[in-house]
Amino acid sequence: MTIKLKGACIIGQSGGPTSVINASAYGVIKTALASPDITKVYGAAHGIRGVLDDVLYDMGAEDGRELALLMNTPSSALGSCRYKLKDSAVDETDYKRILEIFKKYDVRYFFYNGGNDSMDTCNKISKYMQKQGYECRIMGVPKTIDNDLFGTDHCPGFASAAKYVATTCMELYLDARVYDKGMVCVLECMGRHAGWLTGASGVATFRGMGPDLIYLPERVFDLEKFLDDVEAVYRKQGNCLVAVSEGAHDENGTLIVEAALENATVDAFGHKQLGGLAAFLAEKVKERMNVKVRAIEFSLMQRCAAHSASQTDVEESFLSGKTAVEYAVSGITDKMVGFERSFDENGKYVCNIRLIDLADVANTEKKVPDSMINAAGNGITQEFVDYVLPLLEGEARPVYEHGVPRFARLKKVRAVPNK
Amino acid sequence: MTIKLKGACIIGQSGGPTSVINASAYGVIKTALASPDITKVYGAAHGIRGVLDDVLYDMGAEDGRELALLMNTPSSALGSCRYKLKDSAVDETDYKRILEIFKKYDVRYFFYNGGNDSMDTCNKISKYMQKQGYECRIMGVPKTIDNDLFGTDHCPGFASAAKYVATTCMELYLDARVYDKGMVCVLECMGRHAGWLTGASGVATFRGMGPDLIYLPERVFDLEKFLDDVEAVYRKQGNCLVAVSEGAHDENGTLIVEAALENATVDAFGHKQLGGLAAFLAEKVKERMNVKVRAIEFSLMQRCAAHSASQTDVEESFLSGKTAVEYAVSGITDKMVGFERSFDENGKYVCNIRLIDLADVANTEKKVPDSMINAAGNGITQEFVDYVLPLLEGEARPVYEHGVPRFARLKKVRAVPNK
Repeated sequence: MTIKLKGACIIGQSGGPTSVINASAYGVIKTALASPDITKVYGAAHGIRGVLDDVLYDMGAEDGRELALLMNTPSSALGSCRYKLKDSAVDETDYKRILEIFKKYDVRYFFYNGGNDSMDTCNKISKYMQKQGYECRIMGVPKTIDNDLFGTDHCPGFASAAKYVATTCMELYLDARVYDKGMVCVLECMGRHAGWLTGASGVATFRGMGPDLIYLPERVFDLEKFLDDVEAVYRKQGNCLVAVSEGAHDENGTLIVEAALENATVDAFGHKQLGGLAAFLAEKVKERMNVKVRAIEFSLMQRCAAHSASQTDVEESFLSGKTAVEYAVSGITDKMVGFERSFDENGKYVCNIRLIDLADVANTEKKVPDSMINAAGNGITQEFVDYVLPLLEGEARPVYEHGVPRFARLKKVRAVPNK
Repeated sequence: MTIKLKGACIIGQSGGPTSVINASAYGVIKTALASPDITKVYGAAHGIRGVLDDVLYDMGAEDGRELALLMNTPSSALGSCRYKLKDSAVDETDYKRILEIFKKYDVRYFFYNGGNDSMDTCNKISKYMQKQGYECRIMGVPKTIDNDLFGTDHCPGFASAAKYVATTCMELYLDARVYDKGMVCVLECMGRHAGWLTGASGVATFRGMGPDLIYLPERVFDLEKFLDDVEAVYRKQGNCLVAVSEGAHDENGTLIVEAALENATVDAFGHKQLGGLAAFLAEKVKERMNVKVRAIEFSLMQRCAAHSASQTDVEESFLSGKTAVEYAVSGITDKMVGFERSFDENGKYVCNIRLIDLADVANTEKKVPDSMINAAGNGITQEFVDYVLPLLEGEARPVYEHGVPRFARLKKVRAVPNK
């Protein structure tokens, strides 16, 4: 039974963007704009920062066709942040301010679109509002290329990044072995603690055009073992393609890249800014074997290549936003919208919605299980490929104009409180 | 009037591959296989090396559907090389060997698919065969992402790389300014001496989502001026996106990257192996301004991203290969197939064929003219955009299988001489 609640809603985006995070936002915005219970739809500038700073945009003032382009526009159209809320028991300042803004704009629905840290933010706000007795329905809308959110089969954003990694690995495989003289090419993928994205390079391998060696952060990275592996492959076939996670670490948990980077900076969540691992490893290969080497970082491209997004991912991302609004309007709160996979009578992959308590999902990381990593710790298993393949299906087709994509351009009209 | 010449043909691929070099090869192979004058179609393994080593593949033994997949398969399917032929006046060894192989397989047609250095190879072989009185028609089929071949409006391969650069710049523009705290992001593009590809990033700028600053190798790169430019943009808008050519050099012609790279290696043509410029410049920005920086190299991706190739480029690449065979069969030799642009009565871009003497095209580089670079030397003009735009039109659509492209897999059956 639906319990009616009338009021405005806020949608905020947080954490590292993805190719499809705007498809989720569009799912929220479009559904909320059409809901008779939601009086106003506000977009928060740079996630929770926009709420704290009272910078909200009136989504109802946007052109409908421009909003529709969000389906294929990468990155967070409303802006993102990496702002960490203190525990309300320690410091209530931010929470009081958020409540003040919610009251000012009569906000009764709050949708937060992000990864682990964002679900933590979402959970904290939800619990605070409950404690204060302020009626507000709060829903997490997941996104992360890392695919490491707890309680969901997979995360919006992962599949498109995985499709980019797998496709690009195939293209690089062909390119990197074109000459009569071979080389060792080291590819660096994102994913600090979970190897889902790095492992997706193995889809290319299973198609006969991918990395010979794949190192996930779920295993300890042994530099000598790595060099032995590379040497063995290169001696055998005269070429070697390697994919490695940026989060490769030694048995103490110390990042391998720390040996290469003297000045690793730390962000607000205590995460290290990573990079340079591929170059470091390529250099080590050169020292050992004196062969031609190349280091390639997929850098930001792997999370923003909307031109080659997975259509399955685009549609599921929209669905997660849409469903979050539908559940909230029907009375649900304090949940994240997750996915559960099943297969129909023809064996076709089906994506079902599954609600997860925000408290459970906040700050819990889902890693690649042992059964998906090979015994030698330098590759993935068929089980991993079977897990990933259905998610890659379909090619997103952004609108093109004069040979390049036509991405959404929002007007971002500043909101005024509903009097 | 056609002068009949019956015999086998060889197609070889040479130099750095592109997303569409195989479309050209397919144009040659398909047309040659259908020609009554061409008795056999051989693919040389790794360009001229395959001729010297007597490693030729029988293209007639390949599956027709597999060959058709070459249209959207990146990199050189036959393998490439960077082998430089000595002047025949200095050392005739290689030439004698080539003539021997030509005679062994009754080769009367030779198609060489490559860039500047490859046209040099092609020209040398052509002149040698003429001198020896061995009747053989020799045609250059251009390819280069650098777009620096003389005598042609543009080169097959450039447009797809340009489309990748422009599209990726738009995506990175959106990604790199997502946070409430800005950053300086330095993008490094290929192109040693000619700035065509780096300049293509400006297409994104003219669409309102591209680099704020663009540095081509046609201008002297002044590090202090660069830092001033970046600082001015960042101070004004809190973000700065920069595209720079790998070939950025000082007033003495010394590469800027040499200051960063101690051990630059040199390839067979005396070209330096480049890389690391973006990281070097980002570091310099950090030293000066102490802001968040990121360095991104488009690396091999810009030349092998067949999944996002320009359909115009794919079709023109095929056309150049097809036309080379048609002209050769009709009696033409010693030419490269170039392009000339015109516009139809509706102002629509039309690509016409133009034959250029191999001697003219060999080793001559076409650079970006002054009128296409802005006065400050840190951007491009509308003329540049107008030049590039028609080439980017249309999106190539590779065949996909389980969410990733289905690239061609050739059997590569070793050829036996036609007795």
